[in-house]
Amino acid sequence: MIVRIITCQVKPGLEAAFEEATVANRRGSIAEPGVLRFDVLNATDAPGTYYLYEVYRDDAATVEHKETAHYKLWRETVAEQMAADRTSVACSVVVPVSEADW
Amino acid sequence: MIVRIITCQVKPGLEAAFEEATVANRRGSIAEPGVLRFDVLNATDAPGTYYLYEVYRDDAATVEHKETAHYKLWRETVAEQMAADRTSVACSVVVPVSEADW
Repeated sequence: MIVRIITCQVKPGLEAAFEEATVANRRGSIAEPGVLRFDVLNATDAPGTYYLYEVYRDDAATVEHKETAHYKLWRETVAEQMAADRTSVACSVVVPVSEADW
Repeated sequence: MIVRIITCQVKPGLEAAFEEATVANRRGSIAEPGVLRFDVLNATDAPGTYYLYEVYRDDAATVEHKETAHYKLWRETVAEQMAADRTSVACSVVVPVSEADW
């Protein structure tokens, strides 16, 4: 498995629009066979800071995700909502090791 | 639900010891009724950087977790392994909203 933690800084006042677009992207993403999780979080102490916790079966799944219509629509929709460049950290998994636990 | 993303910087050479202690902590943690997930990740581009992705049912569960023997043992065990202070970000959940999806 591969986990990507994406940090998004959203412009003040655009949080609801960002959430709407991101929930739609998540709906499409979890339907992809290679996507095991796609959690969307909001930092408690920073209303404009969001984290996407994306868990992929393998490298190929990360590439396939970026080719999907829902990802491309999300990327275009949120482009004007970003207060800063998104950052992404790629991780390997220590635990859980079983795919069934994701 | 409440999610905490903990970032741990481990001293070079102590990664295996940190992983061993953290896997044990995770084993105890996921047995707690208020802990829904406890994922342990290693940054691909920074071997000493680890993330704990901890999902709690509510505030009370975060407090109860810190009272457990496995948490206290972990905290003591890894204290000398840390290359820097741990950082923690608390988040609310946008999606998934159903507890069954965690």
